[in-house]
Amino acid sequence: MNDNRWSMIAAAALAGLLASGPAAAQFKDAEDATEYRQGAFHVMGNHFGRLGLMANGKIPYDAKAAEINAGIVATLSRLPWAAFLDGSDKGETDAKPEIWSQPEKFKSAALKMQDEVAKLDAAAKTGNFDKFKAAFGEAGKACKACHDDFRKKH
Amino acid sequence: MNDNRWSMIAAAALAGLLASGPAAAQFKDAEDATEYRQGAFHVMGNHFGRLGLMANGKIPYDAKAAEINAGIVATLSRLPWAAFLDGSDKGETDAKPEIWSQPEKFKSAALKMQDEVAKLDAAAKTGNFDKFKAAFGEAGKACKACHDDFRKKH
Repeated sequence: MNDNRWSMIAAAALAGLLASGPAAAQFKDAEDATEYRQGAFHVMGNHFGRLGLMANGKIPYDAKAAEINAGIVATLSRLPWAAFLDGSDKGETDAKPEIWSQPEKFKSAALKMQDEVAKLDAAAKTGNFDKFKAAFGEAGKACKACHDDFRKKH
Repeated sequence: MNDNRWSMIAAAALAGLLASGPAAAQFKDAEDATEYRQGAFHVMGNHFGRLGLMANGKIPYDAKAAEINAGIVATLSRLPWAAFLDGSDKGETDAKPEIWSQPEKFKSAALKMQDEVAKLDAAAKTGNFDKFKAAFGEAGKACKACHDDFRKKH
């Protein structure tokens, strides 16, 4: 079995692992999928950044703003994974080949992030700053761990 | 008063109209804002498209999938508006100058879309296909009306 065949199997496994569920997006082509996931990450990163400013005391803690922004991040955290389609490792993307060659490890990292973001969303709803700050720290670690392994450095 | 001055005033008015609220994003620069709003529209359009496939009978109506996708669209419908920053009418954008020269009209169109999407979200939650289909049609009209006036044709 050649390398192409292996990567097709890995991609199919990845699609099966990540693209299921009633909210899974569908894509016209690999470029559309790449734009979709980049869009989701960009919007998510923006709102996560706002939470970071609060968690790190750069702007005052505003419980309502934290709750809304954490809710946006939680919604978006579930979206990008279905868009790592076979063939969408090309073009303008920071996605490392390891996403497709280590699909189980990638899935695990993606689920860890979603889990920590769900906890952050719950913590933000309590209105308790210390809980919010702690949950933000764990969510940030989960983001970073996945970026370290699966996103190209600039 | 020269044209630049007028456009600055219009942009400030637009920012005041659209960028308020605890969920309003903040941006590093105009390019960041442009990428953010394009990302939000791209993800929103994908999930709106899935709803359209169901509303138009191209795929079977799945009440749970409709509810989840409408919820994603509703969350995203509130986001792009804060990103039409002063100076973000340049570069790779389909935003027409009218967004900045007719801020009240743009705001009205943006609010109409959010309102119709909120109704679509509520209709999807009922699980009733006819209500869902009708609400989808109204939301689609609101999208199109704003695109016709404020998005460049390709």
